[in-house]
Amino acid sequence: MTQAAIIFILDSGERKGKAMKLQDYFPVWEKLTPAQQKQLEDSRLSRTVKKGTVLHSGSADCTGLLLIRKGQLRAYILSDEGREITIYRLFERDICLFSASCIMRSIQFEVMIEAEKDTELWIIPPDLYKRIMEESARIANFTNEIMAARFSEVMWLMEQIMWKSFDKRLAQFLLEESMLEGTSTLMLTHETIANHLGTAREVVTRMLRYFQSEGLVKLSRGTVEIADRTALEKLLNG
Amino acid sequence: MTQAAIIFILDSGERKGKAMKLQDYFPVWEKLTPAQQKQLEDSRLSRTVKKGTVLHSGSADCTGLLLIRKGQLRAYILSDEGREITIYRLFERDICLFSASCIMRSIQFEVMIEAEKDTELWIIPPDLYKRIMEESARIANFTNEIMAARFSEVMWLMEQIMWKSFDKRLAQFLLEESMLEGTSTLMLTHETIANHLGTAREVVTRMLRYFQSEGLVKLSRGTVEIADRTALEKLLNG
Repeated sequence: MTQAAIIFILDSGERKGKAMKLQDYFPVWEKLTPAQQKQLEDSRLSRTVKKGTVLHSGSADCTGLLLIRKGQLRAYILSDEGREITIYRLFERDICLFSASCIMRSIQFEVMIEAEKDTELWIIPPDLYKRIMEESARIANFTNEIMAARFSEVMWLMEQIMWKSFDKRLAQFLLEESMLEGTSTLMLTHETIANHLGTAREVVTRMLRYFQSEGLVKLSRGTVEIADRTALEKLLNG
Repeated sequence: MTQAAIIFILDSGERKGKAMKLQDYFPVWEKLTPAQQKQLEDSRLSRTVKKGTVLHSGSADCTGLLLIRKGQLRAYILSDEGREITIYRLFERDICLFSASCIMRSIQFEVMIEAEKDTELWIIPPDLYKRIMEESARIANFTNEIMAARFSEVMWLMEQIMWKSFDKRLAQFLLEESMLEGTSTLMLTHETIANHLGTAREVVTRMLRYFQSEGLVKLSRGTVEIADRTALEKLLNG
């Protein structure tokens, strides 16, 4: 973890600025006891991380629940050879559960969590959260729903990998990125795209060149420009 | 579902034979109230299904929790074109959660559950289980652990698919099958193997013929015999 990039502040609830509250993350907030609410309020940490910071690295690491106030995280897995694949992304108001994987002993897999943009977070300590899960069926069931939602995203990805051709996965990735960034000119190297999609750089380069020859994209150093969005969408859905 | 293959009996707890109890499935049993224990006991259904019976088909189906008393189930996903991949297997004393997917609204994926051997089950109705999960933080957290365990299996599979070559996945599958069946002569068609591993039959045939040419297996109609277990294990770990 790039410690230099991290600013740590104990948040006493007096922080000004964005008027986001813990109840925005926990729909079951009103069902917690005042004591539980106070413990969550008092123990949360505020943290700001730069784009590229690795926030969580495998199951030995147990940072806590990450509540995203602003920014974007990605969860990915890593092969022994250093290959990556993005398994899902988390946005404002999402909760990252696997950064607190020690709260459940059956979580037996290694996930990496990285800030994809400069990100503001609250961190709920894992011990406290685990205790409240043990006290409150509401929180336990809410946690179940978070895990089921992530599980659903991974199953969706599995289906994509198994049944969808690479050209469609790449078209989909470019369209999603364009939507998230609000631009047609994506600042992405072929290496970065390969790491999202779990393939080799050469495979990405070959397909992007084919896309370029078909007029779907324009390539230049470090950028991919979407040249024909309609054709990309047609490829994706065809 | 092959209704003809299913025998349905309301189990009043007097069934003789295997002395398995509900507490063998629920380590938190002693923490339930006597009323909850009685509801689970009284509402469970006993069911015997033949090998090949599809017990659950996608998220619209909500059969209930399946408690495996004897036999073997497999969970798999299905493509639009009818291709399959086994995502995990369930054995005696396991609990199948996704056959009760309606208990959590965030489960947004379609899993098929099939009996791989003749199987004896108890079924816990989903409504009852959901209510007890809402009442009991113990049961909610136990359910969390089941889901985390299945999630871990799927993540393991994802890593295999992404980072492991097909020869190793096939070697692993044959060794596992041999262990489960207690024999070196596996009654498996190439089509069945392809459905477990999420590939085309031709891919399996080609690799098995290569294995045969290397002396690892012997092929005949409908069977694959492991001829050199040590060499298969070496291939797997090499």
